[in-house]
Amino acid sequence: MIWLNQIREIARPTSSKIVLLVIDGLGGLPHPERGKTELESAKTPSLDRLAGEGVCGMIDPVGPGITPGSAPGHLALFGYDPFEFTVGRGVLEALGINFDLKEGDVAARGNFCTVDGSGVLSDRRAGRISTERCSELCQLLDGASIEGVRILVSPVKEHRFVVVFRGDGLSSELSDSDPQREGVPPKNVIPLSAEAAKAAHIANEFIAKARATLADRSPANMVLLRGFAHYPDLAKMREVFSLKPAAIAAYPMYRGLAKVVGMDVLPTGATIEDEIVTLAEHYQSYDFFFLHVKEADIAGEDGDFARKVSVIEQVDLALPRLIDLDPEVIIVTADHSTPAVLKGHSWHPVPFLLRSKWCRPDGVAEFSERACISGALGRFPATQVMPLALANALKLKKFGA
Amino acid sequence: MIWLNQIREIARPTSSKIVLLVIDGLGGLPHPERGKTELESAKTPSLDRLAGEGVCGMIDPVGPGITPGSAPGHLALFGYDPFEFTVGRGVLEALGINFDLKEGDVAARGNFCTVDGSGVLSDRRAGRISTERCSELCQLLDGASIEGVRILVSPVKEHRFVVVFRGDGLSSELSDSDPQREGVPPKNVIPLSAEAAKAAHIANEFIAKARATLADRSPANMVLLRGFAHYPDLAKMREVFSLKPAAIAAYPMYRGLAKVVGMDVLPTGATIEDEIVTLAEHYQSYDFFFLHVKEADIAGEDGDFARKVSVIEQVDLALPRLIDLDPEVIIVTADHSTPAVLKGHSWHPVPFLLRSKWCRPDGVAEFSERACISGALGRFPATQVMPLALANALKLKKFGA
Repeated sequence: MIWLNQIREIARPTSSKIVLLVIDGLGGLPHPERGKTELESAKTPSLDRLAGEGVCGMIDPVGPGITPGSAPGHLALFGYDPFEFTVGRGVLEALGINFDLKEGDVAARGNFCTVDGSGVLSDRRAGRISTERCSELCQLLDGASIEGVRILVSPVKEHRFVVVFRGDGLSSELSDSDPQREGVPPKNVIPLSAEAAKAAHIANEFIAKARATLADRSPANMVLLRGFAHYPDLAKMREVFSLKPAAIAAYPMYRGLAKVVGMDVLPTGATIEDEIVTLAEHYQSYDFFFLHVKEADIAGEDGDFARKVSVIEQVDLALPRLIDLDPEVIIVTADHSTPAVLKGHSWHPVPFLLRSKWCRPDGVAEFSERACISGALGRFPATQVMPLALANALKLKKFGA
Repeated sequence: MIWLNQIREIARPTSSKIVLLVIDGLGGLPHPERGKTELESAKTPSLDRLAGEGVCGMIDPVGPGITPGSAPGHLALFGYDPFEFTVGRGVLEALGINFDLKEGDVAARGNFCTVDGSGVLSDRRAGRISTERCSELCQLLDGASIEGVRILVSPVKEHRFVVVFRGDGLSSELSDSDPQREGVPPKNVIPLSAEAAKAAHIANEFIAKARATLADRSPANMVLLRGFAHYPDLAKMREVFSLKPAAIAAYPMYRGLAKVVGMDVLPTGATIEDEIVTLAEHYQSYDFFFLHVKEADIAGEDGDFARKVSVIEQVDLALPRLIDLDPEVIIVTADHSTPAVLKGHSWHPVPFLLRSKWCRPDGVAEFSERACISGALGRFPATQVMPLALANALKLKKFGA
């Protein structure tokens, strides 16, 4: 919090606009035969133009060697140290289904599962019941109240659901009931601190109640809970950065993460073109816009090099309309790398470009992993992106006398 | 400890191999006439090949402008913040003579010295008595027991020895008895904290006993102690990084430092060729190997530019046999620079290369101070080497949901 508090003291509201475009999983690795990364393979005249007019570098989303999950990767870009501010699995799962979490809520990821007559776990996923069946079962469990705590149960997909405990004085310092293997009974939820005794009691009561309700619903005759997490109580971007921030993202989880840091989450269509239309429509009402493109990450996770190249080219094609709005600061970067050859998130630094009237351009004239190495910004932690953005929008006062 | 604890949570054991080759004092400065550093002057086809296939950068062993001793330089490479984890002079001296220190031991550096009839110090080094004489005198003092504390005394060289106090509840927060000048009497050892009262008492009793024993041994008729230090109780690499680490080093001090962080220290010959034979022999039993080459540092300390060049070339010649083992990650770097023109350790950043199947290669095709500046890793603290090594060996799980 020290860093954020220092920025808070010097941030000032202005009318200048910042657009932070996050191409999820943008960073890549060379194609094994052709030797170029996804970004290096893509035709990107607009990104190259921005790189040429702007200043480039490489960011470490969380730290050197660290492969970030989606939450830490984004929190860092928003200026929040991901080691200090964590978003647990339960909360992320709830954000992912657009669940309207409130401060104080404790969320957990749930599985419907199968136990045998003696209570031993025989299938951790209840035979992967259909999403429809999951919805019906969630309705049976949803809305219960245990000792003043309301319990909200929502389906995710197949056997997966989210449970939210809403009430006073609930800690999320709870062990999982999911033993992560079959042939043993589900575990009791154990409080991991003295303050968590009440929450553990409520969670175990809920599980007992669910077992009774589901008794004749085999294979989905029991539940497993894991990843208990508090809705994080973060200082909001509005206060810390004196910004009016808006998020333009199609995927629920990223909309949820933006809400966590206090952005207004705008309704938008699914494509980058839709997102830029939304940006244009709300351009006068905010001064910070987070635009999120998910598809590059999905292509990377699928190991589909060509599709990732094509997603990047689509974004590039749409960019002129964003550039035409002439925001004072345009940033293009990512929350982490997702190299198609690794089929998953990775630890590799992420290319970064910032264009503003007041940046000090370097010699980089191409937006790529290799070119950004020589950028004037060097290699730097993603938590420094927000101060850099604010500075280039002339939104930071002088520090010290 | 925060950083290590975070790595501990995501480290996982795998069979992939990491080789960390430390060419002690590798970094240099340009030859005053020829304008190239030692590394730039050396013919290094194998190092250049690794640089070309891998990713390069420059590391700061301890911090910008800080000239590291051998202990902080190595601790940083092993992932331990050298400002947080210190190894005191007494311990280093003991490790340097292969003394088998135990946890809880307090070690100090000793000098035989000369005092006159009134107890005033007339020669801090007792006329630099021979090492043989030093050994005889150490035998007189070795093995005493004072109030349950065993006192072990071992010769180092000439007038220098090591004393180790072994017993319960000994603190190392003690002042030196060595006044660092002649013409005054030796000082009493003073406890620098309340917990150190017992250790101070024992140390002073030992000194009094030594004075009595040595009374007629002039010029070596007294002892001076300094650099009291505890054997450091560090979290071991095995626990922190989920590794099975082995050290292949010929010099006792580096073998000792490796033991401090929990490496198995393998018997080996003195040359880099011997070390690579040892590596091959134990290749299946470990997944992390620290190889240490001391001679580059010695040549640097001697101000012998040509000899340092030749040591680097010898290492390069031996490298193909290491490369043939095909470890998943090869790192070549140093614990600090030792420029021949400075005849000592220096603060200059150290060239670094990492080759793995999963690194993102940069344009650097030569291993040298100048070329590594343009490497994709940029300039980074040596404490980040271990996370980077683990990531490239796919030994780190994703951080956060």
